[in-house]
Amino acid sequence: MNHAGWIREEFPGISKSLGFIFTPREEIEERHTRLREKMGAAGLEAFLVVQKMDYFYLSGTAQDALLFVPLEGKPLLMVKRELERARIESPLEYVVGLKSLQELPSLVAEHAVRLPRVLGLEMDILPVRDYLHLQSIFPDSKLLDGSGILRGMRKIKSPFEVDLMRKAGDIGNKVYQEAVKILREGMTEIEFGGLLEATAKKLGHEGLLRVRSFNYEAYSWHVLSGFSGGIVSQSDSPMGGLGLSPAFPVGASRRVMKACEPILVDFGICYHGYQADETRMFSIGKMPPKFVDAYKACREIHDAVLADTRPGADCEGLFLRTLELAKALGYEDSYLGPPGLQTKFIAHGIGLELGEPPFLAQGQPYPLEEGMTFAVEPKIVFPGEGSVGLENTVVVTQEGCEILTPIDMGIIEV
Amino acid sequence: MNHAGWIREEFPGISKSLGFIFTPREEIEERHTRLREKMGAAGLEAFLVVQKMDYFYLSGTAQDALLFVPLEGKPLLMVKRELERARIESPLEYVVGLKSLQELPSLVAEHAVRLPRVLGLEMDILPVRDYLHLQSIFPDSKLLDGSGILRGMRKIKSPFEVDLMRKAGDIGNKVYQEAVKILREGMTEIEFGGLLEATAKKLGHEGLLRVRSFNYEAYSWHVLSGFSGGIVSQSDSPMGGLGLSPAFPVGASRRVMKACEPILVDFGICYHGYQADETRMFSIGKMPPKFVDAYKACREIHDAVLADTRPGADCEGLFLRTLELAKALGYEDSYLGPPGLQTKFIAHGIGLELGEPPFLAQGQPYPLEEGMTFAVEPKIVFPGEGSVGLENTVVVTQEGCEILTPIDMGIIEV
Repeated sequence: MNHAGWIREEFPGISKSLGFIFTPREEIEERHTRLREKMGAAGLEAFLVVQKMDYFYLSGTAQDALLFVPLEGKPLLMVKRELERARIESPLEYVVGLKSLQELPSLVAEHAVRLPRVLGLEMDILPVRDYLHLQSIFPDSKLLDGSGILRGMRKIKSPFEVDLMRKAGDIGNKVYQEAVKILREGMTEIEFGGLLEATAKKLGHEGLLRVRSFNYEAYSWHVLSGFSGGIVSQSDSPMGGLGLSPAFPVGASRRVMKACEPILVDFGICYHGYQADETRMFSIGKMPPKFVDAYKACREIHDAVLADTRPGADCEGLFLRTLELAKALGYEDSYLGPPGLQTKFIAHGIGLELGEPPFLAQGQPYPLEEGMTFAVEPKIVFPGEGSVGLENTVVVTQEGCEILTPIDMGIIEV
Repeated sequence: MNHAGWIREEFPGISKSLGFIFTPREEIEERHTRLREKMGAAGLEAFLVVQKMDYFYLSGTAQDALLFVPLEGKPLLMVKRELERARIESPLEYVVGLKSLQELPSLVAEHAVRLPRVLGLEMDILPVRDYLHLQSIFPDSKLLDGSGILRGMRKIKSPFEVDLMRKAGDIGNKVYQEAVKILREGMTEIEFGGLLEATAKKLGHEGLLRVRSFNYEAYSWHVLSGFSGGIVSQSDSPMGGLGLSPAFPVGASRRVMKACEPILVDFGICYHGYQADETRMFSIGKMPPKFVDAYKACREIHDAVLADTRPGADCEGLFLRTLELAKALGYEDSYLGPPGLQTKFIAHGIGLELGEPPFLAQGQPYPLEEGMTFAVEPKIVFPGEGSVGLENTVVVTQEGCEILTPIDMGIIEV
């Protein structure tokens, strides 16, 4: 049978029966309208979008491809391998095959007014070698970093995007409900984490948590029990845990979880590319009052941030107020990490990638806007003992915010 | 409690009790000896190693860091966050803290004869923006791409490394034994994949499969049943499957697996950073003779490659001979993909990352060497129907090769 023909005939029905959600045409068109406005303001004659989540955002497909967006004229998606499926997934009009990068100038020339004199690229993430190659292919174009434009656009989510994040949050809610049945004394952190992940996958979790950052790796199985929770590690987060080896030194370990100690579960979910991030506390039997009290403080800080969350609120100001509150509550030296290793953010933006703008953090003095989504995560760390924390993903609404991870916020005791 | 003090006192014992394996000093020293030889030959006065698996290879730690290796003098590991744990994990003598990149020249100047006039970087993977930043920090240094040096070194594995890959293969063996108990009719591909992953994690699988490639994402849950197996997708592999959405369009899907159809399980394992890659066929009841025959052909091609595998064998030649064999066996149009979408490799190198050299592939005319490790994966694809395949990870020995994934090679029927 012919593969292309089979995809054309069968894939639409199959993907529908399996619950695939395609990005609507008007959604894609609106994104391109905004992109062209920003390109014009930045003096870009075209944008060559190379990074997978960027061109997925602008095309609706994550097939291996490059997306050329001229300031004038229609976007051109060039697909390296599975052209037919890309044509079904993307509402773009021009979706063509690309056999080699050498074809790029001629394909572009056919679709653009002229080869761009100023071409935008995502230089925050494009490897140097690929950049030099592209410069040799477009020797007369000035290449500029346009990643700020795409990151700036993507930080405001449409109702369509928020709905996918809400569905990711719903999966998380079900996972935490199942977690109560899975957790038992004598289990290792990684065994618990692995079973939570299997539960989430069955419900639609896509496994990978994408991050737009060199060397930074995200993962779902951040289960830290007892002293593991007190360990700072490679990532810029209040606690990292032991991990499984020196090669992967973060997240769940082979430590056996015990009764009456704090068990922190920070579990990211990805649904149709969109992430929700959440943290809840578990314990087998009662955890000591020290941790219960610290968790109450996290809850208070969490509630204070959300009470102040609305369009116009200053991101840095929101963070700085939590420092004051943590100090007033008696956690100055354990809030967001141990002394000297305390992180400088209370929330990170989230969407197709972890660590998108906005950041409610030191040095981020800009206002929240309606449609921004972020994960707020107050955490308190006691080295050698353990840690507690609470995390929810929220969207900024016209008058405040909505929690997209509606999981009960009490300590989950089994 | 003081975090640094706690790590110094407790981490050595804890990590030992949890089975952490540290890279031995003589292993690291031997790697640096080889690196300096190659740096000298390439005219590099120093190498600034920025990528996590590269500096893990040369330091023994994956904590967030940069590694400066002068041609003369001792290497300097600069750790951004968890200094104390890095000091325990790495046998290097100079392990210091790094608060900001601006400190880099002064730290380097203290440890090098002089600031390097020619500095190597991994330009195959370093983002442009970071490169430009480093150029501004070292304005008088000529920056050169040294990634070929590191990739060239890493392709030959030491007995220590091969042993970790063997342990990854052992985990795989146990996972496939458990798989027989897990698989049942009516389960979705992703449910099966998720449970295999949970089983592997419990045994030490680290979850992430690292790939040194922009936009390419690897994952463990490559479970393709029936027609899913016939679907080519974004990755440069014979078949990609449906995946879970347009945002993650590869690997296991929510398709319900049926009786008497081929179920291909391509499952990567990572242990202490080192990967083993393997594929076996499952079926619930008997799969149709067409697939059984094709699987026999895969087995024959697999065996032929391994029979010819030894130091000196030509990588391209090994691949081209499989094309002839596939043609002779009657699979010219379905070997390694459907017509027009057939991949051009029969094996990829593997170690700390997927897709390392060597490649037994078209356009790769170089000899195998003792200590090289690769995954050989003959696969046959029938669009609209399904696919079969076999994959093992092997190490090239003095006289031939050793299979590191010793899983029974019969079709696994449940």
